[in-house]
Amino acid sequence: MADLDQLRAALGDIPVITDPAKVQLKSRDFYWYSPVLKRQLERVCADLVVEPRDEAEVIRALGACHRQRVPVTVRGGGTGNYGQAMPLKGGVVLDLSRLDHIIEIDLGWVRAQAGAKLAQIDRACQEHSRQELRLHPSTLKMGTIGGFVAGGSSGVGSIGWGILRDRGNILAVRVVTMEAQPRVLELEGDAIQQVNHAYGTNGVITEVEMPLAPAHAWVDLILGFADFTTAVRFADALARQDALTKKLITALAAPIAELYFRPFKSRIPDGTHAVLLMIAEPWLPAFRDFVKAWPGKSCSSVRRATPSARRCRSSSCPGTIPPCTRSESTRPSPIFRCTTRHPITCTARCTCTSASVTRSWRISSSYASMGRSPAWDCRSCASRPRSASMRSSAITRITAARSSTRTPSPSRKAA
Amino acid sequence: MADLDQLRAALGDIPVITDPAKVQLKSRDFYWYSPVLKRQLERVCADLVVEPRDEAEVIRALGACHRQRVPVTVRGGGTGNYGQAMPLKGGVVLDLSRLDHIIEIDLGWVRAQAGAKLAQIDRACQEHSRQELRLHPSTLKMGTIGGFVAGGSSGVGSIGWGILRDRGNILAVRVVTMEAQPRVLELEGDAIQQVNHAYGTNGVITEVEMPLAPAHAWVDLILGFADFTTAVRFADALARQDALTKKLITALAAPIAELYFRPFKSRIPDGTHAVLLMIAEPWLPAFRDFVKAWPGKSCSSVRRATPSARRCRSSSCPGTIPPCTRSESTRPSPIFRCTTRHPITCTARCTCTSASVTRSWRISSSYASMGRSPAWDCRSCASRPRSASMRSSAITRITAARSSTRTPSPSRKAA
Repeated sequence: MADLDQLRAALGDIPVITDPAKVQLKSRDFYWYSPVLKRQLERVCADLVVEPRDEAEVIRALGACHRQRVPVTVRGGGTGNYGQAMPLKGGVVLDLSRLDHIIEIDLGWVRAQAGAKLAQIDRACQEHSRQELRLHPSTLKMGTIGGFVAGGSSGVGSIGWGILRDRGNILAVRVVTMEAQPRVLELEGDAIQQVNHAYGTNGVITEVEMPLAPAHAWVDLILGFADFTTAVRFADALARQDALTKKLITALAAPIAELYFRPFKSRIPDGTHAVLLMIAEPWLPAFRDFVKAWPGKSCSSVRRATPSARRCRSSSCPGTIPPCTRSESTRPSPIFRCTTRHPITCTARCTCTSASVTRSWRISSSYASMGRSPAWDCRSCASRPRSASMRSSAITRITAARSSTRTPSPSRKAA
Repeated sequence: MADLDQLRAALGDIPVITDPAKVQLKSRDFYWYSPVLKRQLERVCADLVVEPRDEAEVIRALGACHRQRVPVTVRGGGTGNYGQAMPLKGGVVLDLSRLDHIIEIDLGWVRAQAGAKLAQIDRACQEHSRQELRLHPSTLKMGTIGGFVAGGSSGVGSIGWGILRDRGNILAVRVVTMEAQPRVLELEGDAIQQVNHAYGTNGVITEVEMPLAPAHAWVDLILGFADFTTAVRFADALARQDALTKKLITALAAPIAELYFRPFKSRIPDGTHAVLLMIAEPWLPAFRDFVKAWPGKSCSSVRRATPSARRCRSSSCPGTIPPCTRSESTRPSPIFRCTTRHPITCTARCTCTSASVTRSWRISSSYASMGRSPAWDCRSCASRPRSASMRSSAITRITAARSSTRTPSPSRKAA
C-alpha cells in the first residue's frame, strides 16, 4: 500500500484536504444519474484531495504520487455523469479548480488554465471583446474548461462549429505527464486528440487554448410542428443556411418538450413536436422569412437569451433603443431637421411600447457626424444613454421641427 | 425629348457634371472586358452626371428626372463588367459616390450609405472592433457597398458564408423609388431580394446594412496537386471542416494558376493544379495536420495576408511576439522566476529567427497578474511593445534568474 504520510511530506506546502466529509464530497460527480453506477460507485472515496495552485505544484504532486505509487484521479468541476472524476482505487483526487487564471484573450481565441470555469471564461471574453466560447455544454456554470476537454463534450454551438473533436475546436493543450520526472507537453493540431476525451487518464491538462466566436445577442425560440418528420426536415434545412447566424437547432419528438421544459409548458400545445432554436438578433428578419416556407408549424415562443437593447432598423434612427421604464401615449412620428440640411425621420419603436405605438427621438448631434452614433434624447422619457460617451464639443442641440422638404416615412414591416 | 435645362433648374444646388470628357468617363464601366460589348456600347454617353450628397438630394433628383422623363442610370464604383452602369438611353448618370458615410457599426453588422467603398468599410470595421465584411469581391478597393449589392456578386468569403443572395448575407437595404413623389423603402428579410442583383433598375439603394465577421489574421496559401480530381476532392473536404476557420478555397486546373498568378509562378511547378487558400492564423496547426492526410500535394507557398505578429503557444510566454529587426545568436531557453513563486519557462520563437533558434524574454510583470498580458522585454533586442499600455504601478521589474524548481521545457513541434 501507498505510504500517505510520506506522500504528505513530499507535497510540502501544497494545499490538501483530509477532512473525511470533504474528501468524500470531492470524490463524487453526477454518477448517481445512473442507478447502476450509483450502486457500484457509492462507496468510492479518495484518501486525500490535493489542490495545487499552479502548474509547478501539479508537477510536484504528480511526481510525489508516482514515487509513492499512489493512484491519482483528476477533477475539474465534477460535473461528469459517468464517474469519470471518481477515485476507483482511492488515493489522491487532484482538484484543479485553483488553476483558474485566464491567461490571454485575443481575436478568435482564449488561453486559460484548466480549472477556469466555462462561464467565467465567457464573461471575461465578453467583457474583453464581445466574444464567447464556440461550444457550451449544459454544465456551463460549474464545468471547467479542462474538464470540458477531458470529458470530450460539445453541446450548444455544435450546429455551427461541429463537435469538440473536429479539427480546430481545440487550439492547444498543455499537459503534465505522471512519471518520476513529469514532463510538460504543449500539444497542438491532431496531437490534441490524445488527451481530448481521455478523462485525464494519460496526462493532466493544465492549460487549454480554445477558439472564440462573436458573442451575439441570441434570441431563444421554440417552434412547434404537428409532424415530427417535418420538424426534423425544417431543422436540417435551417442548419444548411450558412448565412443565417444560429447557435442551436434541436428537434424534440413529443412529448419531450412539454414534459421536460416545464416553464414553457403553457406555450407548447400537447402532442407538439418542438424545435428549440437560438438565432442571433440581427438575423431574425431573415429567419422569419425562412420559417414562412414551412407550413405545419403550430406555435412559437420567444424569449431573449441576452437582454439586449432592441435596435431600430430605420436608417435615420440614432441607433440602439434601450428599454424605457416610463409609460407613454401614442405619438405620431415627427420629422426632425438638424442644423445641417438633412431631414431626419425616425420611426423607431421602443421595446417598452406595444407594436402599434411609436416613439419619437430628439437628435442631439448633426446628421453629418453619423459616422459615429449621435447622442439623442427620448422625448418621452428624456433618457440619454449615449451622450456620456461623446465629447461635449461634438454635441449640438437641435430643435425638433417639421421639415419643409418632408421625406416620406420609410415603410416598416410589423415587428 | 427631355428638357435638360428644366431638369437642371429643378436640380437646384445638387452638384452636376456637364464637362463632356468627364461625363463620358462616368458613363463607362469595365464593359470593354467583352469584345462584343465594347463594340455595342462604346458610343453610349449620358447628358449629365448628378452627384447627390445625401438621400434628400437623391429624392429630389429622381423626382425631377421623373417629371422631365429623363432616364436615370445608377452608378456606384463603376466596376461592373457588363455595362450595368452605362446610360444606354443617355439622360442622367446618378453617381452615388458622395453618399459614403458609415452610419453605424456594432457586433455582427455595419450600416453604411450606398456609396461607401468596400475597403473603406472594412477599414472602419477593423478599427472599430476587428471585424470585416463577410464577402469580398475582387473589386474591394474601388467597389461600393451599394454597387456590390446591386450587382449581386459574392467572392472571397463565400466558402464560409454562402453567396450574397443567401438569407442573412444582406441585413437591410434602404431604397428610393423613381416616381413623381419618390418613396423611401426600408427592406429587410426576403424583401431585400427585390433589389439585390437588380442593378438599380427598380429603385436606388441609398443605405445597406451588412453582416460582419471577425477580421482574423488570414494566411494565404497555395497547395499544388498533380491530379485535378484530387485537388477538387481536397477542396471539398476542407470546405466541410466546420471548425477550421477559412475564407477562401479555390481549385484551379492547370495551367490557370501558373499563367494567371504571375508573381507566384516560380512557386507553382508547370502542370500543377492549384488550390488557393486563406486560413485564419490560429487554425494553421489544425490545417497542417488536415493536409497530411492528402497525398499527392506537390508544393506549397505561403505568404501572410495580414502581416500579423506571430504568437508563441508556450503557456508562460507573455504573449504575441512581434518581428525583431535585430539579428541575434542562438540562446538556450532560460527559466525565469518571478517575484511570486511561479517559475516561468519561455521557449518562444521570434519570426525574425530561423526555426532552430529560440529567443528568451525578460518578464517585467508578475505571473500572478497574467489575467492580463504582462509587460516584457526581449533580452536580445530590448523591445517592449506592450509596456506602454500598462499602468506603470502594475509593472514590477523582475530579475531573470534560474529557478531552483526547474520546470522541464515544454516539447514544441517544429514550426
